[in-house]
Amino acid sequence: MAKRLIPCLNRVLIEKIIPPSKTSAGILLPESTSKLNSGKVVAVGPGHHDREGKLIPVSVKEGDTVLLPEYGGTEVKLDDKEYHLFRDDDILGTLHE
Amino acid sequence: MAKRLIPCLNRVLIEKIIPPSKTSAGILLPESTSKLNSGKVVAVGPGHHDREGKLIPVSVKEGDTVLLPEYGGTEVKLDDKEYHLFRDDDILGTLHE
Amino acid sequence: MAKRLIPCLNRVLIEKIIPPSKTSAGILLPESTSKLNSGKVVAVGPGHHDREGKLIPVSVKEGDTVLLPEYGGTEVKLDDKEYHLFRDDDILGTLHE
Amino acid sequence: MAKRLIPCLNRVLIEKIIPPSKTSAGILLPESTSKLNSGKVVAVGPGHHDREGKLIPVSVKEGDTVLLPEYGGTEVKLDDKEYHLFRDDDILGTLHE
Amino acid sequence: MAKRLIPCLNRVLIEKIIPPSKTSAGILLPESTSKLNSGKVVAVGPGHHDREGKLIPVSVKEGDTVLLPEYGGTEVKLDDKEYHLFRDDDILGTLHE
Amino acid sequence: MAKRLIPCLNRVLIEKIIPPSKTSAGILLPESTSKLNSGKVVAVGPGHHDREGKLIPVSVKEGDTVLLPEYGGTEVKLDDKEYHLFRDDDILGTLHE
Amino acid sequence: MAKRLIPCLNRVLIEKIIPPSKTSAGILLPESTSKLNSGKVVAVGPGHHDREGKLIPVSVKEGDTVLLPEYGGTEVKLDDKEYHLFRDDDILGTLHE
Repeated sequence: MAKRLIPCLNRVLIEKIIPPSKTSAGILLPESTSKLNSGKVVAVGPGHHDREGKLIPVSVKEGDTVLLPEYGGTEVKLDDKEYHLFRDDDILGTLHE
Repeated sequence: MAKRLIPCLNRVLIEKIIPPSKTSAGILLPESTSKLNSGKVVAVGPGHHDREGKLIPVSVKEGDTVLLPEYGGTEVKLDDKEYHLFRDDDILGTLHE
Repeated sequence: MAKRLIPCLNRVLIEKIIPPSKTSAGILLPESTSKLNSGKVVAVGPGHHDREGKLIPVSVKEGDTVLLPEYGGTEVKLDDKEYHLFRDDDILGTLHE
Repeated sequence: MAKRLIPCLNRVLIEKIIPPSKTSAGILLPESTSKLNSGKVVAVGPGHHDREGKLIPVSVKEGDTVLLPEYGGTEVKLDDKEYHLFRDDDILGTLHE
Repeated sequence: MAKRLIPCLNRVLIEKIIPPSKTSAGILLPESTSKLNSGKVVAVGPGHHDREGKLIPVSVKEGDTVLLPEYGGTEVKLDDKEYHLFRDDDILGTLHE
Repeated sequence: MAKRLIPCLNRVLIEKIIPPSKTSAGILLPESTSKLNSGKVVAVGPGHHDREGKLIPVSVKEGDTVLLPEYGGTEVKLDDKEYHLFRDDDILGTLHE
Repeated sequence: MAKRLIPCLNRVLIEKIIPPSKTSAGILLPESTSKLNSGKVVAVGPGHHDREGKLIPVSVKEGDTVLLPEYGGTEVKLDDKEYHLFRDDDILGTLHE
């Protein structure tokens, strides 16, 4: 039975996207091609309470592709698959084709 | 008579789960298999007051299996059994099969 | 006339419990037996004002047995008896048989 | 398909304006001519929640020309084009001809 | 004409009590006898405004005997008499016979 | 076309006043004459949101002569003219003849 | 025309009182006589906004004699006269004969 993690408070569980080293036609991409530090949102927490006790929901949702900061995030291994936990306010933005 | 601890404010009493070193069939697991730092919630505090004085209850409950951060937590021995006290907002998430 | 101290704001006056070195039958306890850093609540302050000016009462009461953090607390000697003053939010929890 | 980034919370995506090294008539500008650290707003986040949970929108909008602080900002490469992400409250002002 | 000081905000003017070195019968007290760092409240400020602008009065009053922290306090000499100014929330408690 | 800067949030654009080195009658002023670090307000931002989301306007206005702190402020060159950007709460006061 | 300074926000303009070195009868006072670090309030700012946006007026007024902390304050020279600017909450108290 696979393990599932529901993040607490305003944490977001993300599976990092490994940038392709080759084009779809199989051509090796030069090292310098920009590599976006991005990932897929797998699960989100309920949000956090502001000082008035109101629940502020997380600003991204399951399935979003998000741009991640260079540093930070907590590594989590579930059934030998690697994920990262970020706080909602550390996520830089959502990526759209 | 066993000692029971009711945590104060938003603290959570947790009994750590020792990851199995063998499979259920008795086969030794390689060292590298991912070891989740997790535990069972034994008792929770009443929660903490936000700045408006409202009581924000703890986000996990007794019986939950939770994912713990690598560091932190206060070790507590009750009747020679080892527990750990964490603040609610240090708990990373709840684990579900 | 004994001196009595009423703590200010959210402070709690505690008399530390010295863990027994022998069992009730007089047998010396091994050094390693877990020694709980606990104490008896002797007096509590009125509580502190949250940002809205509302009074948040102290979460423990006179007579409670409480679990104390390893460090912290201010030593106070009243009539040659030793007490410790802790802030309410430093107390880890209440102990119950 | 070009990648588009929608910044989270009160972040602002900016394309820096490279100050001209020549006048429109082609004359080389002396090194000392003042070089404004400015840029064009490409996209803005929804804003951030204040302590009351109210959403405070970002104070600049798409298309604005803004004056940037000397330091700070996160570099982001989208389809090999360079952008910078700034927090709304780090932007110094809007420039108008 | 003696100088009088009315403390500002939540400050408290205190005259320290010098612990007796002899018993009332004139017997020298051993050095080790506990010396309480205490004092008499001479004047109190009006209190301070919480974040909502409400005035939170000082928690001790003129004439109270108070227990002082080991460190802190601002020394003030008025007409060659020595006093100390403490913030209300630094005062540990009130002493009662 | 001259460039105009509208400061963001509670920033204030100031043109520093260079203290005269001679009296109006042309007499050289001694070095030691007090030199006020002052300036003219050229433009002000809309103000900043307090924690309740209310807009707190800037406390000085265009045309005011203001006293500036010894340090701080961000230098900004617009069309080779030098200005300084200060945060409203860093400005010491307004000067009046 | 003398320059006048109206402090911003919760700042207070103070002219320090130089403690007399002789008694009124002209007798030299010993070095050790207590020298109060005090001053006269010359002008006060409008006050500062609390988090709710409400204006909290300054707690001292023009003409008050105030006790100043040993350190702090910004020196300001207006028409060769020396003043000091203090924040309201740094002023220790008001002095009354």
